[in-house]
Amino acid sequence: MIEALLAGDVRALARAISLVEEQAERAAPLLAEAYPHSGRAAIVGLTGSPGTGKSTLVDRLIAGYRREDRRVGVVAVDPSSAFSGGAVLGDRVRMQAHATDPAVFIRSMATRGQLGGLARAANDAVDLIDAAGYDPILIETVGVGQDEIDIVRTADVVVVVLVPGMGDDIQAIKAGILEIADLFVINKSDREGADRLAADLEAMLALAPGDAPRPAILRTVAVRDEGIDGLREAVVSFLHSRGLARRQARRRERAEMRLRALVSERVLGRLFDPDAPGSDGLAHLVSEVAERRLDPYRAAEQLLARMEAR
Amino acid sequence: MIEALLAGDVRALARAISLVEEQAERAAPLLAEAYPHSGRAAIVGLTGSPGTGKSTLVDRLIAGYRREDRRVGVVAVDPSSAFSGGAVLGDRVRMQAHATDPAVFIRSMATRGQLGGLARAANDAVDLIDAAGYDPILIETVGVGQDEIDIVRTADVVVVVLVPGMGDDIQAIKAGILEIADLFVINKSDREGADRLAADLEAMLALAPGDAPRPAILRTVAVRDEGIDGLREAVVSFLHSRGLARRQARRRERAEMRLRALVSERVLGRLFDPDAPGSDGLAHLVSEVAERRLDPYRAAEQLLARMEAR
Repeated sequence: MIEALLAGDVRALARAISLVEEQAERAAPLLAEAYPHSGRAAIVGLTGSPGTGKSTLVDRLIAGYRREDRRVGVVAVDPSSAFSGGAVLGDRVRMQAHATDPAVFIRSMATRGQLGGLARAANDAVDLIDAAGYDPILIETVGVGQDEIDIVRTADVVVVVLVPGMGDDIQAIKAGILEIADLFVINKSDREGADRLAADLEAMLALAPGDAPRPAILRTVAVRDEGIDGLREAVVSFLHSRGLARRQARRRERAEMRLRALVSERVLGRLFDPDAPGSDGLAHLVSEVAERRLDPYRAAEQLLARMEAR
Repeated sequence: MIEALLAGDVRALARAISLVEEQAERAAPLLAEAYPHSGRAAIVGLTGSPGTGKSTLVDRLIAGYRREDRRVGVVAVDPSSAFSGGAVLGDRVRMQAHATDPAVFIRSMATRGQLGGLARAANDAVDLIDAAGYDPILIETVGVGQDEIDIVRTADVVVVVLVPGMGDDIQAIKAGILEIADLFVINKSDREGADRLAADLEAMLALAPGDAPRPAILRTVAVRDEGIDGLREAVVSFLHSRGLARRQARRRERAEMRLRALVSERVLGRLFDPDAPGSDGLAHLVSEVAERRLDPYRAAEQLLARMEAR
């Protein structure tokens, strides 16, 4: 499978991602083989609230990259719900124009499941798509949760998408999102309020601590394909101007984040696996804490000591 | 300090929470003493998107509980931003009416910092407030991220606040939030669209898997104090009708979640502490991963093996 994947076989790639997504323990041998072949693609993260038109923007970016004859990978991370039963499908439909183009690989992932598990699976998927020779790879997430933010924040370039007139409570929307932007896009910029939004952004950026270069603010109307070439150029120019040192720093951050997530997942998986030996002892410990006979800190120390004694 | 806290001293309580919030390692001895005295308060979680009027609702709930002569604790978890420099203060001002009432203890916490760290600090704060004799304790969060959802989901009763007319993209807002509701509140229910929202909710709940009792849908207009008594009654009736078994199950869930968070924090803290012995080795490992000479899975295994060998 890995050989087919490295040769660019789309079905092998899709199957590898499914394995990685469904069973964490299958990911290790696959990644071990694919990982040395990854690291070549430019990773472009796009995030923004629901309704900002990110999917249309991604659709137009894909079309632009195709005109340059590049093979494009997309990982779209969707909010999901036990009620709706999966990813929000409406948005994805907008990208279907490219579904029959073998040089475009699109993968949706749902935000269901364990904390941290999604970030692991999404990063693994990016590496597999990278190893299969796609470049650039776009990661699209809804910027609502820490999980989603963590997924895009370590991309080579982070694009934050905003729209005019999303209400005056921009304060709440921006928490944690504005900080990670390398580029801002005001989409639907033909709407009223685009100038004010740009001015608000400028004002906010002027208050930013540190002397890091200020992110550019671009305007697009994705449904009319306006400003998309400018966005692609801004991405390229950001990646060039940033220099090797900052690129490497970002990749080290990404590596560290992945290590943290994997270590945490492994440790918790071992400790809290109901089928593992000693899980009776854990259930007892949880009850002791729930019934206030033991405090959580002591219980955590006991668990760690037990793990280290194994 | 703990003795003063257990005797209900407000300043000792405030100081204890600050210690727990700022330095995780100070939390252990404090919690060890306070924890056996906690577990008595009813914990009411409230969550909803920005703009749903949660803070006004909490303000009116406090007033109601005060009429019953109960001592009320509040932990308000705010989105924060490196730009705005902290918690969103506007909302908090609405609760200031109770600031001079010694029987009301309100604590704001910002969502800054490490993943998981906020959940730990918020839960520790609840236990300290509980040990100081406040009952009920309200936990208010903005329902945008997994972190915030995890904080309220294990409360004894989870209230999800919605408002009519927040746009048609309710699909995206609800991801992960609707599932945790024990009670729904449609606030600002004098606005157009309240009936439709209630009907949409009913329809969605009808699709819910399982045979768990369906959450009640209440209507309030918090600014006019309408429906607040009904909400308080619904909380009481939910807690009574649920029975001891489900209450205990929820508390075990909460205990397990805390254990997971603490174990993860401890393990990562030890491994990634830049001042710890062996951190040079870690930095080297991160570089190896960033430069694709080692894949993240093998690196995680090496880290874990190293930790266990210590």
